[in-house]
Amino acid sequence: MTRLESIGHAARQASRTLGILPRLAKDRALSAIAEALETHTDTLLAANQRDVAAGREKGLSAAMLDRLLLTEARIAGLARDTRSVMALPDPVGTDIEGRILPNGLRLMRRRIPIGVLGVIYEARPNVTVDVAVLAVKTGNAVILRGGSETLHSNLALVSVIRDAIESAGLPKNAVQAIEDPDRSLVSELLQLDQYVDMIIPRGGAALHALCRKQSTIPVITGGIGICHVFVDEHADLERAVDIVENAKVQRPSVCNALDTLLVHRNVAQGFLPAVAERLQKSDVLLKVTSEVETTLHRAGSTIRRDLAGPEDFDQEWLSLILGVRLVDDINEAIAHIHQHSSEHSDAILTQHLGHANQFINEVHSAAVYVNASTRFTDGGQFGLGAEVAISTQKLHARGPMGLEELTTYKWIGIGDGHIRAS
Amino acid sequence: MTRLESIGHAARQASRTLGILPRLAKDRALSAIAEALETHTDTLLAANQRDVAAGREKGLSAAMLDRLLLTEARIAGLARDTRSVMALPDPVGTDIEGRILPNGLRLMRRRIPIGVLGVIYEARPNVTVDVAVLAVKTGNAVILRGGSETLHSNLALVSVIRDAIESAGLPKNAVQAIEDPDRSLVSELLQLDQYVDMIIPRGGAALHALCRKQSTIPVITGGIGICHVFVDEHADLERAVDIVENAKVQRPSVCNALDTLLVHRNVAQGFLPAVAERLQKSDVLLKVTSEVETTLHRAGSTIRRDLAGPEDFDQEWLSLILGVRLVDDINEAIAHIHQHSSEHSDAILTQHLGHANQFINEVHSAAVYVNASTRFTDGGQFGLGAEVAISTQKLHARGPMGLEELTTYKWIGIGDGHIRAS
Repeated sequence: MTRLESIGHAARQASRTLGILPRLAKDRALSAIAEALETHTDTLLAANQRDVAAGREKGLSAAMLDRLLLTEARIAGLARDTRSVMALPDPVGTDIEGRILPNGLRLMRRRIPIGVLGVIYEARPNVTVDVAVLAVKTGNAVILRGGSETLHSNLALVSVIRDAIESAGLPKNAVQAIEDPDRSLVSELLQLDQYVDMIIPRGGAALHALCRKQSTIPVITGGIGICHVFVDEHADLERAVDIVENAKVQRPSVCNALDTLLVHRNVAQGFLPAVAERLQKSDVLLKVTSEVETTLHRAGSTIRRDLAGPEDFDQEWLSLILGVRLVDDINEAIAHIHQHSSEHSDAILTQHLGHANQFINEVHSAAVYVNASTRFTDGGQFGLGAEVAISTQKLHARGPMGLEELTTYKWIGIGDGHIRAS
Repeated sequence: MTRLESIGHAARQASRTLGILPRLAKDRALSAIAEALETHTDTLLAANQRDVAAGREKGLSAAMLDRLLLTEARIAGLARDTRSVMALPDPVGTDIEGRILPNGLRLMRRRIPIGVLGVIYEARPNVTVDVAVLAVKTGNAVILRGGSETLHSNLALVSVIRDAIESAGLPKNAVQAIEDPDRSLVSELLQLDQYVDMIIPRGGAALHALCRKQSTIPVITGGIGICHVFVDEHADLERAVDIVENAKVQRPSVCNALDTLLVHRNVAQGFLPAVAERLQKSDVLLKVTSEVETTLHRAGSTIRRDLAGPEDFDQEWLSLILGVRLVDDINEAIAHIHQHSSEHSDAILTQHLGHANQFINEVHSAAVYVNASTRFTDGGQFGLGAEVAISTQKLHARGPMGLEELTTYKWIGIGDGHIRAS
């Protein structure tokens, strides 16, 4: 057995114990984790300081260093989040359906944990806690592979979590981390299909592509949002300015933020200067087609802007940049979205019922909005209580994934000597 | 664009039209397919004769030739099955949930087609019709890749189906086949993630392994059943004989047939000779451990049997062969199942409530039975109306997959100028 096979084998064993625990036992472990995070704050901060110092030496950007940083307040936040997950209902054991077949066999379809999750992520120590907590809550074992930049933080966190789990009577191998920073271990993890049931990448497009390509285990891909708002000619233009501003500016670094604004030609002259004026207050940089440029120029807009290259409409900006183009009608808007959207979150702003319905029907993104900001695509906003990831694929789960999406089901047939007739 | 990319692109286009059709339009196409199969029976039989002749020349087994063969009755059966699918409810457009968020945003989760399916299968022309019909019913486009042994049959069937679809006003590219027998095209199909949303392999273990390994598209794996029946010491032994016989003998060539019989040591002396006597009537060959051999020998059983090698408990027999071993108790039975089961269908026969519950909880197969035959794992038996495949994986679908499992969902948010609060 390789080192990783041993980890996989131990995870499978732990998952068998964990998978049949009642909610109270799992919640006790979560409570122990929350308490341990608080008790061991100093140890965790010290470990994190080593990562931050190393990151500074390596010349990581200020944004990266901030994502990497743990503070007393952030650790308290992690403990609080753990207790919130504890308070959520446990999906495991729910019967999705139950009926009696014509022959008298009682058939149920019951939620059970997935089994063993493999989670691959980048330099965010909060994900370590987040994922471990969601896994324990749903009775899944988890193998964590964090970014090398947070190695010491992750080791300290995982050690605290494992001790807490064990103190609550659960197998500590329910949560394991791959400590060796050797990158080939990621590839090995992606092929460990004997022991791992599901891979969740939490990171950029390159990580998702790598997982899709190399994994022999089902992968939940997503997280990449090239999001659109289409301002129809029948839109309430005042509200449209508010929505576009909210979608672009409120938190530009996240996947449900707006990337491309499509404006119906007939309302461009009135709408573009108004939205430009609003966005200028947040110092948004526009990437515009020549038509948009002409309209803004005529209106005397002084917003920062460049002429858009064709790739600019295939960008997830994750910053205060916005692509803008005109369309002839809703059909051209939908065609643009079909071609460029990552099927994350797209919106139409219109008061025209037929156009609203056409957009809902023809745009197949994980979340489709009418007269609302794309920023709502979020487990918390959708009332799921917790968010595991946001999927943009078609299988298993789409959009924000909550606890239920960390479960699968089995069919249970209860007979009384039932045999199948010829 | 390669030839396959063109097929993929055309499928994506067709799926956009198909995905928003109301049920009546799709059912009209199914009706046209059923009628066309009947009208063109002679053409189809002639094409099939070419495959059968080539198969005979190539020395295919009688079983293979039979699976390949179309007859007038079989084509009539395909038309009948098509009309049965037509009569099923359409899952597309169902709202799985709908609620109003605290901020007034109306949120729905609505079933939509997956999009484009890639189906790879072996020498069974009936699968061509089966899959095309299920895809059209659920608004999915499909790319078919059948076995080379049925090339002419498949081309004729696909041509009849495409013409029928088109006559009903649907895009004929909703159903396409890869005609070129070049095997490298299978690998290319498995990487066509830009256009294909889901791969369904219908065939043996090697095909499933190939798909898991090479595909960058989510794959539904399954179909391999190493199935167990555990006869507990508290079993009703008379009924147990009936169930074991049914599970092994009724249709031994299918994935839910019994492969390994586990018998509690305390009832072996009474049960083994009785079950051997029954199975002998169907000329079942046993693969037995030395303990089982001793018991059968003492009882004077004359059933055909070999001593089992260790790999004999990892076999999906698909024939009248049955592995038999003794276990000390339910824990040893479950441990054996954890180690050897393909997580398809496993059963306990017992009157002990605690043992029944332990088995249900600890065996995580797609279907788990108490006092019933494993042969029930089937879309028809479970009342799903149709069966796309039987999944033994954890994501998206487990066990028999019906029409619903050919759908995904999208979230729809209807607002009135809603923006996200900070």
